[in-house]
Amino acid sequence: MPTAFRLRAPVVLPCDPGCPALRDAVLDVDETGRITHVGPAADAPDAGDAPVRDCTGILLPGLVNAHAHSPMTVLRGMGGDLPLLRWLHEVIWPAEARLTPADIGAGMLLGSVEMLRAGVTTSTEMYFHGEELAGAVLASGARLVATMGIIDAPGWDWRKMLAGVDAWIDADGLRSGPGERIEVGYGPHAAYTLPPEALTMVGAAARSRGALVHIHVAESAGEDTTQRGRYGSVPAMLDRLGLLGGRVLAAHAVHLSDADIELFATHGVAVAHCPGSNAKLASGIARVLDLRAAGVPVGLGTDGPASNDDLDLWEDMRLAALFARLSTMDSAALGAADALLMATRGGAEALGRDDIGVLEPGRWADIVHVDVDDPAFVGGLDVPDEQLVANLVWAAGSRRVRDVWVAGEQVVAAGEPTRVDRAEVQRAAGAVTRRLLT
Amino acid sequence: MPTAFRLRAPVVLPCDPGCPALRDAVLDVDETGRITHVGPAADAPDAGDAPVRDCTGILLPGLVNAHAHSPMTVLRGMGGDLPLLRWLHEVIWPAEARLTPADIGAGMLLGSVEMLRAGVTTSTEMYFHGEELAGAVLASGARLVATMGIIDAPGWDWRKMLAGVDAWIDADGLRSGPGERIEVGYGPHAAYTLPPEALTMVGAAARSRGALVHIHVAESAGEDTTQRGRYGSVPAMLDRLGLLGGRVLAAHAVHLSDADIELFATHGVAVAHCPGSNAKLASGIARVLDLRAAGVPVGLGTDGPASNDDLDLWEDMRLAALFARLSTMDSAALGAADALLMATRGGAEALGRDDIGVLEPGRWADIVHVDVDDPAFVGGLDVPDEQLVANLVWAAGSRRVRDVWVAGEQVVAAGEPTRVDRAEVQRAAGAVTRRLLT
Repeated sequence: MPTAFRLRAPVVLPCDPGCPALRDAVLDVDETGRITHVGPAADAPDAGDAPVRDCTGILLPGLVNAHAHSPMTVLRGMGGDLPLLRWLHEVIWPAEARLTPADIGAGMLLGSVEMLRAGVTTSTEMYFHGEELAGAVLASGARLVATMGIIDAPGWDWRKMLAGVDAWIDADGLRSGPGERIEVGYGPHAAYTLPPEALTMVGAAARSRGALVHIHVAESAGEDTTQRGRYGSVPAMLDRLGLLGGRVLAAHAVHLSDADIELFATHGVAVAHCPGSNAKLASGIARVLDLRAAGVPVGLGTDGPASNDDLDLWEDMRLAALFARLSTMDSAALGAADALLMATRGGAEALGRDDIGVLEPGRWADIVHVDVDDPAFVGGLDVPDEQLVANLVWAAGSRRVRDVWVAGEQVVAAGEPTRVDRAEVQRAAGAVTRRLLT
Repeated sequence: MPTAFRLRAPVVLPCDPGCPALRDAVLDVDETGRITHVGPAADAPDAGDAPVRDCTGILLPGLVNAHAHSPMTVLRGMGGDLPLLRWLHEVIWPAEARLTPADIGAGMLLGSVEMLRAGVTTSTEMYFHGEELAGAVLASGARLVATMGIIDAPGWDWRKMLAGVDAWIDADGLRSGPGERIEVGYGPHAAYTLPPEALTMVGAAARSRGALVHIHVAESAGEDTTQRGRYGSVPAMLDRLGLLGGRVLAAHAVHLSDADIELFATHGVAVAHCPGSNAKLASGIARVLDLRAAGVPVGLGTDGPASNDDLDLWEDMRLAALFARLSTMDSAALGAADALLMATRGGAEALGRDDIGVLEPGRWADIVHVDVDDPAFVGGLDVPDEQLVANLVWAAGSRRVRDVWVAGEQVVAAGEPTRVDRAEVQRAAGAVTRRLLT
């Protein structure tokens, strides 16, 4: 297929292991929105009549948010800094009960715009009302893994919720939409909010369809204790119930024993590490280095914007590195390149996907262009790779994201969304927030 | 004195205890650059012919960086993520040895511009070459507490360095420059880099002049252990040597015993808490809640941009709150308002200053205007105070700083410095960085 367009940039970070930089490189995209070539400009293939866009900064893969509840943008900051249980019972759950499907769409669209502006092209959402989630993400032009919430709680019927996911996948396939922007999966909330039978059924339904199961696991110490008496641990419980195996993504996974980590490694369970949320809610620090040493794929998640309080995955990169250092008292425990790889390639691996998270031929052209006109890049681009990546991750971050493409389509230009009017998106979500405050 | 100009804004956060917001308020500034009035617009005094500037967002005091080595912007990201000692010995110290006074000025100016754009109006610097530090900060229009480095190391003479500070203060007074922008103090590096005699002499010299002593204390566990055998602890050593008393600011103060905290409280020693640097270098987490409970004034510092890696005090606000929560496993341990007060009022208290850090009559008009056209402020300004402050600290931060005044002079307008050309400042500092790489 011919090249649709070419990007040329002084630095490309494909996010290969080790995070080496390509200098003065080009990246070709075909008409389907997939990458066809990445390499030095000096020996680039003929691009024919394809337009060439000269970028002045750094190209890297779109970031992958491995765990989010983005419609909760409309609840951002509510309840201030109440203790966790009071915050949930007195503020968040009553507010969520008042959200209409349209409200959820408005919150998701704001979250999607916020993420795109930070260079997050894929988000893994666990929430309700899939039609609104997909509609919002398709409107912004982002990419969505919609793991639909399944929970046993007053007003909710987990069997219907499970059947709804089955039906969606059976009707549209696992992936659909332009550039395969929408993937559907299962989002059983947690072992403590579903009966054992439900977890078994979700596992079977997902495996038979090759779909992702995305579940909260061992987020807080209290949760772990509750389950330990019955099953030994939450991972052991999920294993006994047949949920592990296939594509399983455990969100948080803070309180894991050595045996739990071994179980994850054996079954190929991945982890969405959410350091910002885990610290803000005082849940603890996940054993990221131990998980990685055991071969468990680890991606990074923001969690919901009511508890983090934003969707800036760059901050979670830094927190992942800082927490790994504090946990081990080793200042080299987790570097800037490790953190960047966790937010890109690592996220794709955690989702079991080989079509995003890396700039290489065959993958979707989900690309971020970072502008380097900033004190963060004090030495400019002509510095060693490790210094450049340190400047990018530690000092620049989301602030310098300038342009973003998803499946080859530019969805952010000069910091603003191309598909939607940001003021209008903010206004619509703000109306929901203000209504909830009355 | 007549009003020189008035700012009017929908929200003013004076940073009084509790962090209440004034709604639809005005702030008057006189010709000397001091605040003369802050209060609701409805009952504002007559401003005469003074121009009124309508601000659309939130006004708050300029942030106070209580511990920095900002000229190290030119070393940002060097050495990537090497372990601490290798990073210091192989990368940072050899590079610093090559810095000329002019290089230090160029690095300080870049740091000053970076801080002003983030709303940090005052920085407490511990470095060398005071003339260049003051020159750079006066050029940018920021405010400086220049605690001049005093160290016993090859190539340095601590007696000359001490005498130099004495002479500077004796010539110019403690504070000088337009809007009293420059304060001079003593920066004895640490108990492990100076002989006991030097610490005693610095303490006496500072007390006799009413000057600030700014010293690294118990940053790493290793440092503490080294001293413990001789004196019990670093604070006990400083006490025995007569350094405590007067205005003393202990930077880091990570490894303190209960007795050390009591000693600080007794002597009125303040702490500059540097959570980002302490985590990145795997030094540990300071006992901020215990220090505050004991009545020790605690400000926030970024530390040097070679080790943090930036001068964004908003990130340190969030880290202070996150680390306090992780330390106590209490999600309400330190809230957004506490963090904001620590970076403003707390910084002023830690420096022993009553002329900055709060928006109230008599203090300098060091003011930040935060733009709220951002998904961070989803509900706009018409939300409860605690939600607004949560949105500001957790989700918006430095990115939304739009305008900044120091001593009533606008030094940042629409995100860019008014006094200097940012491109030129970056170019000059970048030339230093690239020379050091050769």
